[in-house]
Amino acid sequence: MDYILRVNMTDLSVKKENVPDKYASLGGRGLTSHLVLDEVDPLANPIGPNNKLVFAPGLLGATSAPTSGRMSVGGKSPLTGGIKEANAGGQAGQYLSRLRVKAIILEGAATAGKMYKLVLSKDQATLKEANDLMGLANYDTVAKLTAQYGEKSAYITIGQAGEMLLKAASIAVTDQENRPTRHAGRGGLGAVMGSKGLKAIVVDPTGTDRADLADPEAFKTAQRKFLDTLNKHPVTSSGLPTYGTNVLTNILNEAGGLPTRNFSSGRFEHAEAISGEKFHEIITARGGKPTHGCHSGCTIRCSGVYLDKDGHYLTKEPEYETVWANGANCGISDPDAIAMLDRLYDDIGLDTIELGNSLAVAMDGGLLPFGDAEGAIKLIKEVGQGTVLGKVLGSGAAVTGAVFGVKRIPVTKGQALPAYDPRAVKGIGVTYATSTMGGDHTAGYATTANILSVGGSVNPLKPEGQVELSRNLQIATAALDSTGLCLFTAFPILDMPEAFEAVYEMINAKYGLTLTGNDVVELGKTILRAERKFNELAGFSKQHDRLPEFFKTDPLPPHNTVFDVPDSELDTVFNF
Amino acid sequence: MDYILRVNMTDLSVKKENVPDKYASLGGRGLTSHLVLDEVDPLANPIGPNNKLVFAPGLLGATSAPTSGRMSVGGKSPLTGGIKEANAGGQAGQYLSRLRVKAIILEGAATAGKMYKLVLSKDQATLKEANDLMGLANYDTVAKLTAQYGEKSAYITIGQAGEMLLKAASIAVTDQENRPTRHAGRGGLGAVMGSKGLKAIVVDPTGTDRADLADPEAFKTAQRKFLDTLNKHPVTSSGLPTYGTNVLTNILNEAGGLPTRNFSSGRFEHAEAISGEKFHEIITARGGKPTHGCHSGCTIRCSGVYLDKDGHYLTKEPEYETVWANGANCGISDPDAIAMLDRLYDDIGLDTIELGNSLAVAMDGGLLPFGDAEGAIKLIKEVGQGTVLGKVLGSGAAVTGAVFGVKRIPVTKGQALPAYDPRAVKGIGVTYATSTMGGDHTAGYATTANILSVGGSVNPLKPEGQVELSRNLQIATAALDSTGLCLFTAFPILDMPEAFEAVYEMINAKYGLTLTGNDVVELGKTILRAERKFNELAGFSKQHDRLPEFFKTDPLPPHNTVFDVPDSELDTVFNF
Repeated sequence: MDYILRVNMTDLSVKKENVPDKYASLGGRGLTSHLVLDEVDPLANPIGPNNKLVFAPGLLGATSAPTSGRMSVGGKSPLTGGIKEANAGGQAGQYLSRLRVKAIILEGAATAGKMYKLVLSKDQATLKEANDLMGLANYDTVAKLTAQYGEKSAYITIGQAGEMLLKAASIAVTDQENRPTRHAGRGGLGAVMGSKGLKAIVVDPTGTDRADLADPEAFKTAQRKFLDTLNKHPVTSSGLPTYGTNVLTNILNEAGGLPTRNFSSGRFEHAEAISGEKFHEIITARGGKPTHGCHSGCTIRCSGVYLDKDGHYLTKEPEYETVWANGANCGISDPDAIAMLDRLYDDIGLDTIELGNSLAVAMDGGLLPFGDAEGAIKLIKEVGQGTVLGKVLGSGAAVTGAVFGVKRIPVTKGQALPAYDPRAVKGIGVTYATSTMGGDHTAGYATTANILSVGGSVNPLKPEGQVELSRNLQIATAALDSTGLCLFTAFPILDMPEAFEAVYEMINAKYGLTLTGNDVVELGKTILRAERKFNELAGFSKQHDRLPEFFKTDPLPPHNTVFDVPDSELDTVFNF
Repeated sequence: MDYILRVNMTDLSVKKENVPDKYASLGGRGLTSHLVLDEVDPLANPIGPNNKLVFAPGLLGATSAPTSGRMSVGGKSPLTGGIKEANAGGQAGQYLSRLRVKAIILEGAATAGKMYKLVLSKDQATLKEANDLMGLANYDTVAKLTAQYGEKSAYITIGQAGEMLLKAASIAVTDQENRPTRHAGRGGLGAVMGSKGLKAIVVDPTGTDRADLADPEAFKTAQRKFLDTLNKHPVTSSGLPTYGTNVLTNILNEAGGLPTRNFSSGRFEHAEAISGEKFHEIITARGGKPTHGCHSGCTIRCSGVYLDKDGHYLTKEPEYETVWANGANCGISDPDAIAMLDRLYDDIGLDTIELGNSLAVAMDGGLLPFGDAEGAIKLIKEVGQGTVLGKVLGSGAAVTGAVFGVKRIPVTKGQALPAYDPRAVKGIGVTYATSTMGGDHTAGYATTANILSVGGSVNPLKPEGQVELSRNLQIATAALDSTGLCLFTAFPILDMPEAFEAVYEMINAKYGLTLTGNDVVELGKTILRAERKFNELAGFSKQHDRLPEFFKTDPLPPHNTVFDVPDSELDTVFNF
């Protein structure tokens, strides 16, 4: 039987609870968002004892469904002040599902100055003192935990950023090689974990089984059908496995939508030097892995392993968002510097998108020149060291911009924007503006139809059609984020009806349900409504569904367009 | 004829405009708030070219009405993101009225890296290049300007904080001795002035006359009646002149409402050492002035002149809010240290309330110990020097708290709270929560009936009656802030019907109007409605009319009360 694990950091109690009926058909983001709405006061201090942090694997967890091991982490965001779901790969999601953990609800707060770890296995769910891990970065934390709990466990940890309660702190999840390279990155949930005094969760799957299936044959059929679509669609079968997500650098640069030097241009003259093609070449030449899955069961394998010049492991293959935020957006064109920043973010426990924006905003404010790779690395090391400047950057782009008196601060709802300029990719601009999550590309990835001709085609430079595009994607994504499936399965889902069918057929076969496509859409809507409700109660109004002023006033080269989707249209995104 | 001066910093034009009819009967805050609502996009970047900064003397400017020289400065606040009126003493308000300037509207923004001054006299209204003033603190700026424009002009200037666009930057106004000690302090309007590239306004009253009066005899009668009430009421005739505003330290400490060590207690064990009585003793012993008016025509004279140990001028007599913010709230009990901080704030151009809170929050976050006066002075010097830490503190308590991961951050709508703990002075808690200005005591100074038994008496520790008290005071204050009269005239106005009568009788006699008491109340309501409208369009909802969570959860010693005015009652404050 699946259960909810309620961990109270104030009295250090750990309780198994039955899953209330209303949560039975929810998983991942659907579950975290509903639990946060139901249990967290929207006006609670995000780093106070009344916020909660919820970990939930997806509905298809612990099955053979490809890429089904993603995990949602939810809570009230210290960065946005609204609801947050941050989604991570790595091994922990699957292992939690194998342990039959439907969700972990972390609540209360430990006595200041004390740190704990939560140890989960088939036989125990125990909080243990972990002051020995205090102040450690993620790699060292995981090394120490692995020595004690073994290579076969997964580890969910925070680095120094989470302990310092920084608004851009992430939560790290170990990958198949026990490296803390997979992060619930956005919105500062690492600070929530830190505020509660929890340094780590150990998830030991020893002796556990895959999920029980109501109809094993039907599941197998649906699973194969789904796998077929992943193997057929060009993005999931070829583009992503070969060049990783960073296949996008050249594409976005060509489209004039690659935000460069703090969103002052849509083209970076050194894009080629940091492209996926270039990274592929470097990784291959040094004997790294150009293709690698972020968790077992992944068939897309968009990641890789990046070795340094001497052939030693440095970090995972940096994602497109990382390459952009710390490359083009900082005017940096050195792949090794970007890879080093990626390593530092994973180690200190920081959101790579937010910190790349912090750097770019600080550069715009004159702290260091655009393109200063060495300076950027030095600054990010300062975050781990806890210098004042490091803490400023680790507080995100909005705080950094305030401190340095910067006029161009690319954030919505306090969260920094990802790698697509909303003036040249207007569908994603609608998502940035209206998402319950703040500036977030994954919440409604309109780059599909705007740039990639996936799921149709909508001119990225015109305002027409963007709201409908973003709306449909936001609904679909909310549902998909509940399954545990990787967001990249959306490529076949958007283009191939049988891929979408296979998703709910797998869920039906696992749980003995009779969901239809409409039910899945309805699930997405229900989740968005819950998130909007929380945000409304936290004080968000339609004026928060807007991009910063400069996107409307400053034309973006090379197309010299501004963001011109009318406010009145933005206000219709959630009319469903 | 009164006129509006429109100063465009983009094209460096200065235009005199007729006063539109709708603004004819408005002055001070009524005029700044209506102009901001009418002319500023509520979603404009506060430090971008589309924000405007409005200076407006009050309706009774350039008359013999006592204390009538106050000036309102309005705009969209970089600190709160909402509308802002900051009110300053000093000579400039009267001189602007004598020049017949109804309002200055500063708009656009100069080319980055250039600074200007606006020179106003009977014969000119000219923008002049002022790069020679760049980087100067207020005292040096004024010294340089005085050398050129004379002792008889008034100067409105910004220090380094405004140039650095810091969210807690103030706008300084010179007093009768040409010292930049009077500030439009709150909400970061100094950063707005800095963002436009305006370093100073020179206001030369040479050759100007007092305002024309429609009925000089009636004015004289009303003026004498008003003066009588000021001379009779114990607060304005004795308490304030003798000990200054700091007469409140002992009173609030006794009441258990003096926020101590970042709002962790309502009593400070060293209150006596920083009391008004003690400052009076020090000032008198050193040969300073224990009584001094912030502008000519002031009969209350609540200020003074503070000399250092060697008998040299250091600063004005620090106000109660300064003494509290940098004294009790920082655990500091050294009057000389507080006076030095006051001097530094005036010089760098910083809001003393906001910065005292920045310091206290930083102390709570472990940056330095509570009570470290020398450390505090060093830190505030860093703001002027533009170090990263200095910029953090100069960005206000909310940013400082974010950077240092502090859980107890006493701000509403982003603005730090003044010197009355809302758990022990609940009427002012209602004002903090609901004011259009963010945390602001002057917006509805319920300390009157809560603590001072002025204008009735309402138990400060109970939730009952606080909403009505705050509502009435907020309405009255909005009207009073439009007259140019000092807020302290409210003491007789609240207690003596003839004082209130005299106010509108003076206005009637000046303008040939027939206003009644009801009209004045209606004016207050109209102003609040305009401000609420702007804030609503800027994204504020009822959830922003709340105090931070800890005031509701953490009891305050010694009364061990929490803030318990129900949210539903807070939502009725503006039901009028």
